Amino acid sequence: MSADNLQVGIIGTGAIGGLHAHNLALRTNGANVAAVMDIDRERANAVAQACGARAVQDAAGLIADPEIDAILIASPDASHAELSLAAIAAGKPVLCEKPLATSLADAEHIVNAELAAGQCLVQVGFMRQVDPAHCDLQALLLSGQLGAPLRFRGTHFNPRRGDTIISIKDAIVNSLIHDMHSLRWLMGSEVQSAFVQWLPDRADMPHSARFALAHLTLDNGGLATLEWSGDSGYGYEVGVEIVGELGTAQTHSHSSPAIRRAGRLSQAVTPDWQDRFAEAYQIEVQDWVDSLRQGAPTGPSAWDGYMSLVIADACLRSVDSGLPEPTRAMDHPAFYA
Amino acid sequence: MSADNLQVGIIGTGAIGGLHAHNLALRTNGANVAAVMDIDRERANAVAQACGARAVQDAAGLIADPEIDAILIASPDASHAELSLAAIAAGKPVLCEKPLATSLADAEHIVNAELAAGQCLVQVGFMRQVDPAHCDLQALLLSGQLGAPLRFRGTHFNPRRGDTIISIKDAIVNSLIHDMHSLRWLMGSEVQSAFVQWLPDRADMPHSARFALAHLTLDNGGLATLEWSGDSGYGYEVGVEIVGELGTAQTHSHSSPAIRRAGRLSQAVTPDWQDRFAEAYQIEVQDWVDSLRQGAPTGPSAWDGYMSLVIADACLRSVDSGLPEPTRAMDHPAFYA
Amino acid sequence: MSADNLQVGIIGTGAIGGLHAHNLALRTNGANVAAVMDIDRERANAVAQACGARAVQDAAGLIADPEIDAILIASPDASHAELSLAAIAAGKPVLCEKPLATSLADAEHIVNAELAAGQCLVQVGFMRQVDPAHCDLQALLLSGQLGAPLRFRGTHFNPRRGDTIISIKDAIVNSLIHDMHSLRWLMGSEVQSAFVQWLPDRADMPHSARFALAHLTLDNGGLATLEWSGDSGYGYEVGVEIVGELGTAQTHSHSSPAIRRAGRLSQAVTPDWQDRFAEAYQIEVQDWVDSLRQGAPTGPSAWDGYMSLVIADACLRSVDSGLPEPTRAMDHPAFYA
Amino acid sequence: MSADNLQVGIIGTGAIGGLHAHNLALRTNGANVAAVMDIDRERANAVAQACGARAVQDAAGLIADPEIDAILIASPDASHAELSLAAIAAGKPVLCEKPLATSLADAEHIVNAELAAGQCLVQVGFMRQVDPAHCDLQALLLSGQLGAPLRFRGTHFNPRRGDTIISIKDAIVNSLIHDMHSLRWLMGSEVQSAFVQWLPDRADMPHSARFALAHLTLDNGGLATLEWSGDSGYGYEVGVEIVGELGTAQTHSHSSPAIRRAGRLSQAVTPDWQDRFAEAYQIEVQDWVDSLRQGAPTGPSAWDGYMSLVIADACLRSVDSGLPEPTRAMDHPAFYA
Repeated sequence: MSADNLQVGIIGTGAIGGLHAHNLALRTNGANVAAVMDIDRERANAVAQACGARAVQDAAGLIADPEIDAILIASPDASHAELSLAAIAAGKPVLCEKPLATSLADAEHIVNAELAAGQCLVQVGFMRQVDPAHCDLQALLLSGQLGAPLRFRGTHFNPRRGDTIISIKDAIVNSLIHDMHSLRWLMGSEVQSAFVQWLPDRADMPHSARFALAHLTLDNGGLATLEWSGDSGYGYEVGVEIVGELGTAQTHSHSSPAIRRAGRLSQAVTPDWQDRFAEAYQIEVQDWVDSLRQGAPTGPSAWDGYMSLVIADACLRSVDSGLPEPTRAMDHPAFYA
Repeated sequence: MSADNLQVGIIGTGAIGGLHAHNLALRTNGANVAAVMDIDRERANAVAQACGARAVQDAAGLIADPEIDAILIASPDASHAELSLAAIAAGKPVLCEKPLATSLADAEHIVNAELAAGQCLVQVGFMRQVDPAHCDLQALLLSGQLGAPLRFRGTHFNPRRGDTIISIKDAIVNSLIHDMHSLRWLMGSEVQSAFVQWLPDRADMPHSARFALAHLTLDNGGLATLEWSGDSGYGYEVGVEIVGELGTAQTHSHSSPAIRRAGRLSQAVTPDWQDRFAEAYQIEVQDWVDSLRQGAPTGPSAWDGYMSLVIADACLRSVDSGLPEPTRAMDHPAFYA
Repeated sequence: MSADNLQVGIIGTGAIGGLHAHNLALRTNGANVAAVMDIDRERANAVAQACGARAVQDAAGLIADPEIDAILIASPDASHAELSLAAIAAGKPVLCEKPLATSLADAEHIVNAELAAGQCLVQVGFMRQVDPAHCDLQALLLSGQLGAPLRFRGTHFNPRRGDTIISIKDAIVNSLIHDMHSLRWLMGSEVQSAFVQWLPDRADMPHSARFALAHLTLDNGGLATLEWSGDSGYGYEVGVEIVGELGTAQTHSHSSPAIRRAGRLSQAVTPDWQDRFAEAYQIEVQDWVDSLRQGAPTGPSAWDGYMSLVIADACLRSVDSGLPEPTRAMDHPAFYA
Repeated sequence: MSADNLQVGIIGTGAIGGLHAHNLALRTNGANVAAVMDIDRERANAVAQACGARAVQDAAGLIADPEIDAILIASPDASHAELSLAAIAAGKPVLCEKPLATSLADAEHIVNAELAAGQCLVQVGFMRQVDPAHCDLQALLLSGQLGAPLRFRGTHFNPRRGDTIISIKDAIVNSLIHDMHSLRWLMGSEVQSAFVQWLPDRADMPHSARFALAHLTLDNGGLATLEWSGDSGYGYEVGVEIVGELGTAQTHSHSSPAIRRAGRLSQAVTPDWQDRFAEAYQIEVQDWVDSLRQGAPTGPSAWDGYMSLVIADACLRSVDSGLPEPTRAMDHPAFYA
């Protein structure tokens, strides 16, 4: 079925952009990587060669290129909003890595641009929504076996990345944003208020974050806790646990061999997100390609990107005030039913 | 990278053939399903339509068709050998479902045909070799953490299929053949002798099989037990446990949510092989396509197909004698290094 | 070693008092149940007969009885403080079920009475401190393998008890008090502030509790969340999870057979606290008897009982204010080193 | 309830005798250790002192001592039969460590002595029968949830003990004897034939055993495999897995904390049998004392001791012949209903 392969242009070829390029070019049915752009030309060239694509230098030109059907944005966070707006202006579908924007105002601009354009073009890279462990949990919730969900617990434990010190604000906007989306998606509810507690990573930097807890109340009456570590000590792990009226359930993602050795029964934990979510990233782009060839994106929308930032925004205010803070969001447009 | 998509012809569009057709047409990069053949014309037409392929009626014609680059054989077991020989004669690569043949003599013909042709064309559908759970176990063994492997335990538990009564001979040649390959692959050793015990499925049919144990001794001094059920009572499950000099390890394949409900903490077991090995079947054909586009197949060879039947053959003789029986194999051709 | 068996008097023969009586009389070395008291005479008589003890009607008389060496208090919560004070006045050791008192002021009286008496007589029934699952976790923490503990998560899930509606205040003082002690014991730190969130059990009773979360900050800089359910839907379960600088650990208490049946791999969850903590209750009284025969109690002290109520007190104020509240405690007497 | 404490005499104060002495003296209700005997006088004295008992030098005298009510035999295997016969002759109940005897003929003498005495006096130390993990599995089988049991798999993995080389015969008679009893007890069936395979521990000692498999057929039509290691590489582990008509179940005995550290999720495995079966040994003697104070032993009988040796005997013949061998047993006396 190669006749009408989707021609994709990729902006940003770092860790996540390179992974998407590899998956689209070599592991996806029905798509080609037509062009890649990166301010690091060498990196762009290397990825282009591996994918049989052109390397270009200009993001705007890539978006405008009539031979390119769809855009994948994997550039630094701060550029997401502007590039998404450009793609919308060009009328091209876009898969934008999370976060959709780095401010709530910018995310609102994107939502308004889509409303003005009258068509859904933007999908946000919340790939956990196609991760088998998460999908199985959703299917369980939808089956009614747990009754109504009362409490959500998300855990998001990262290995330390070299000498990087992460601020509590970055932890919220760049990393916990994933868990905020999972919460909305799985609980089927928006968030009402947020209260953030954290442990600094360095005693002399009170806004650095080694560990964080966000306690949320939900519109449907439920409670949620998002738990984040920037230095797990053991690897990368993401989990969701939901307490329902009739029981509880949690995602299970340890599928490595059970080893008995040296006094212990053990399983390996995935070392990083690339390993943990390898399958999800592959499914995400295959589904995106399939959906575009059939008409329109079906994954997380610009509205989902905006609403996750609504939670992040309340969390950031709680960081400043030290108290629970209410969320503040625009009205839900009927367009995003 | 669609320029040189591999054009695949599929013979047999039943459960496994239909799955391969779906994966090749919709989930694989670099291949097309060009034609499908099945004696059930309706089924062939339905699969052809879903894949954008032609439905044809003649297996020989499909094999000879110059527009077809490679053959996938998923027809009934008894036809595997003849079709594989035809593909070899046509000089075309073939992915043949297991077992390679239904007799050791037929499997030997195929090996000899490849030797005569001077090139490896046949790959056998032992897809566990690309199943992540099995690959992780192999990686562990190769890492040396367990020391030399001493004992292999394979479990292969099937749900009952309607009213079907399976004979101990079919259980061995059609089903346990998978575990025989896993044993050879993971233990890195051939089998020396086999002793089979089984429980009949019906008291009045002593050669029917509900449960079977094959106890094997290995060339490298190790021991193996293959454990098979035709009526697990709970679902489909395949596992490998290996005892090494320094410890033990077993595959772990339960990744569904951990649920607490109604007095129990539980996880779903996969109901059937389609569910358990969905990812492996996808990887198998993607890898096959990639390998052919780069030159030659890299998966389980005709020799692997033959050697698994060598074990099956000793098991069949043990069924008849009630005693341990030695294996009997041709010399290992240098061609299959 | 029966020469100097400890003669124990038990006040209260309900579920927990009856269990203690059984354990002391039939499963403990070095003790006898000399007398039991309960306002329900029939129940007292039945327990007395099963234990070879006298049934008496007067708690004060039982405490004063010169033939009785030690007192076990398992009467309703509201009587704990008064009876403990009476035992201290009589100079007799007492094992008092939790909570030590139902108000912080009463607990302070008991601490002051012990200080005045100049000897530790009171042990509080925080039996998790001898539960093997909890002890193993403590040993792990003490080993240093996890580094300094940063975050404590306690879960305490109960099955619904008939039509009983539990108030958030009772949930805190009678049930979560266990988790408050576990937190102090395992984290080696006192609590600085408490913030409580809960879901009402009945919409028309806002102070009823079906589910509760207490978020605590610790003197050592750590964070803690206590999670409580009054209607788990699946059984009784208590767990502790600790995030340390070098890794995390959680208690593991599912030791029932792993069953594969009807599509699921499962283990039974204990239905109630009697089943979950059967071994701990036995160890608790054996250790108590052993310690008294060797001199003085070694389990959780009156101070531990008081400090757990300090946390409960801050939680109750948070319930009223809807905000984080600081703890308020008397100075730590050197007597309780 | 100390009035009629059972006065126990213990013969043998090594690892297992010392453990029994400790449990009887300090952890058991209703018993005293009156005297202990060991050919190692120092060891006997130390144990006697710790238990408040007399140390004696003569086993026959201890058995005859009118102040001693019951005998516990924990001396070397070769002395079990003679001492049990002496206790029967004295009309005293005896808890004899496994194996009951080191030859089938000696075990038959004991059975015949009990038949002649007309009362059950002997209990054999198959303490797995009171191990909670095993009891839970039995309860499950009796509940009918698994249907009729078809297949038993016992695993018995030991850590290497220093430089000791264990012969395949010792592995069978001293160690696998435990699993033979578990099989009979849980499957409710005797054994029909045995086929033994093993891996030598040293290449130059073909009858040394590092790893062994015993494949058994049962009177009820079932199949069993007993799997033994003398050098597990990781600790001590005993497990039972049973395949029934409706599903499967296996004992679960890992209750240590689940730790995430250094790339792995792990639990400690018990290092040795003392640790793994600590609770079972305590229950065993408490139950034995309780049963004797109420009349007669209720644990595994001399007949159970004999029938386990019947299996061992067939295994030993299989070791010699290299073939499956039938079991040979005396008729089941109605006395042991």
